[in-house]
Amino acid sequence: MIPKDTALLVIDIMNPFDFSHGETLAQHTKKIVSPINDLRDYCKKKGHPVIYINDHYELWKADLNLIYEKCHNEISADIITPLRPSEDDYFLIKPKHSAFYGTALNTLLHHLSIKNIILTGIAGNICVLFTANDAYMREFTLYVPKDAIASVSEEDNHYALTMMKNVLKANIDDTGTLL
Amino acid sequence: MIPKDTALLVIDIMNPFDFSHGETLAQHTKKIVSPINDLRDYCKKKGHPVIYINDHYELWKADLNLIYEKCHNEISADIITPLRPSEDDYFLIKPKHSAFYGTALNTLLHHLSIKNIILTGIAGNICVLFTANDAYMREFTLYVPKDAIASVSEEDNHYALTMMKNVLKANIDDTGTLL
Amino acid sequence: MIPKDTALLVIDIMNPFDFSHGETLAQHTKKIVSPINDLRDYCKKKGHPVIYINDHYELWKADLNLIYEKCHNEISADIITPLRPSEDDYFLIKPKHSAFYGTALNTLLHHLSIKNIILTGIAGNICVLFTANDAYMREFTLYVPKDAIASVSEEDNHYALTMMKNVLKANIDDTGTLL
Amino acid sequence: MIPKDTALLVIDIMNPFDFSHGETLAQHTKKIVSPINDLRDYCKKKGHPVIYINDHYELWKADLNLIYEKCHNEISADIITPLRPSEDDYFLIKPKHSAFYGTALNTLLHHLSIKNIILTGIAGNICVLFTANDAYMREFTLYVPKDAIASVSEEDNHYALTMMKNVLKANIDDTGTLL
Repeated sequence: MIPKDTALLVIDIMNPFDFSHGETLAQHTKKIVSPINDLRDYCKKKGHPVIYINDHYELWKADLNLIYEKCHNEISADIITPLRPSEDDYFLIKPKHSAFYGTALNTLLHHLSIKNIILTGIAGNICVLFTANDAYMREFTLYVPKDAIASVSEEDNHYALTMMKNVLKANIDDTGTLL
Repeated sequence: MIPKDTALLVIDIMNPFDFSHGETLAQHTKKIVSPINDLRDYCKKKGHPVIYINDHYELWKADLNLIYEKCHNEISADIITPLRPSEDDYFLIKPKHSAFYGTALNTLLHHLSIKNIILTGIAGNICVLFTANDAYMREFTLYVPKDAIASVSEEDNHYALTMMKNVLKANIDDTGTLL
Repeated sequence: MIPKDTALLVIDIMNPFDFSHGETLAQHTKKIVSPINDLRDYCKKKGHPVIYINDHYELWKADLNLIYEKCHNEISADIITPLRPSEDDYFLIKPKHSAFYGTALNTLLHHLSIKNIILTGIAGNICVLFTANDAYMREFTLYVPKDAIASVSEEDNHYALTMMKNVLKANIDDTGTLL
Repeated sequence: MIPKDTALLVIDIMNPFDFSHGETLAQHTKKIVSPINDLRDYCKKKGHPVIYINDHYELWKADLNLIYEKCHNEISADIITPLRPSEDDYFLIKPKHSAFYGTALNTLLHHLSIKNIILTGIAGNICVLFTANDAYMREFTLYVPKDAIASVSEEDNHYALTMMKNVLKANIDDTGTLL
């Protein structure tokens, strides 16, 4: 079902959840761990690139181990341990909301001849939504599996999905339908 | 109330409203004509730059007269005639949703030493919202007077305002409070 | 010889030549008028887009007539009159040296499915060179006909051509060879 | 002499020199090791940020140790060992020539309130020159100490310096004069 020139993006999943409403977001994020890992497994098997793109928590360095350590705590462990990137995943940092702003993402996607992006991660109504819009303006086709993004408020998550479907023409079928 | 290094942005207001739900959007947009003109008058008097940034309707040219003609019709006349840019307004075209994508806006704002942006225009939940996010990532302070943006759905408009207030720290006071 | 997904770029040719060494540049530019017009004629006949991209001389408006008037003088007339863009040419303004910085050029080129760019215009060692580099980073294939760019110093022009050939893999054959 | 809102950039110095004319470039680069280290020491003492920005050699990861290993060889050792970034230096990767293209550099510089950049590294007529131009378009003031950049050809290096001085208004005094 997934075209061959497709990459999987995992947004801001290395996360300490230590901000206002962080625990609520962590609760919602736990539900997307398994769908994201299903997508990763599928993509690795089929040869689709898997690209993590993440806040750097004032490190300004794409150092996965340092970022993992900074994020690891009681709340985050059940999320960041199973989703920890492996050596063959791409791992980029982003300085702002959108994964395209101040990053090599666009260049990497062109280097890999990618035309379609599967967007996953958090928060659905902020970093995922703004990344989706930047991807749409750059003319990528979008898949945003509705069981693979999470937000603090379920209403916000639903709103973001509706907007990505209606305005950005995203396919929002769930992971099971997609794979 | 408005700091001196502030510009007024008027987004996509030269518009034919000839798309699905265009008439509904026109109805809502008529209500923001007068607040936007109050802001324009104020800004001109105080020396704040007024910058129109608009879709080009496949002209790919920032030719105000051509764009005005393309947009002029029974539905749009009550909007685009009173809001038509004057010679001393800046007039830029944008190829995509965000006013920052593929435009000289960021360079112009720096050239004018602008730190704060008043965002007005349509649609509140699409071009205005995505412009607001791009402005926020570039570290401008945002004013989005809630009576100066319009969307097809009032719920969407309200949602966009809430998001710009909460996520992007925008001041969403109405025009009367702002001036 | 020119692949079909090719656009012709004409850089900064609407020019008053009223700066230091402007007369010298005008002298050199007169020699490229005819090659550029040969390229234009060929491109129009074959359906290749012709895109003028030009300084705006503090107008911040892509208003061809205003810019032409600003540029028209005794020195420039023999250049800007024969090369004046026609209605079916694209005409963009650029705020800085590179034609890609703060402009819709990249979006327009993608919209037109362009993969190759013929670069012409002035100054060869400044705006043309920096545009060439930005085009190369965006993975366009470059043609820079050596009789269609000019600089104040012939040595600088030669240096820029050598650099575009060696570093940016540009084809620098002259117009006659290309057409 | 160096204003306080200044950062030091070190470009592409982690390098295997394993390409055509790489040995020649390495010879020239050895001469800039000591000036760059003088600049680093001074900047660290005075609290100026030191930012390495480097090719990633198809790793697409800003992993300093991996990149150092990839670059380490008989030719490079005398350069990359003394200039190896320390933990408190910023370390970014760049996918193309210019340090501003597809990187967080511009965002990082604004985050650090930087207005002036000292450019050092290699190659002077390629990555340094194109970075300088991008910095100039973004309105940074430039210092390019002439004993802290190197190119394959000394003539090319000299040409790039002249161009950065004349076109981009860079200060090209040597390190001794600057510190």
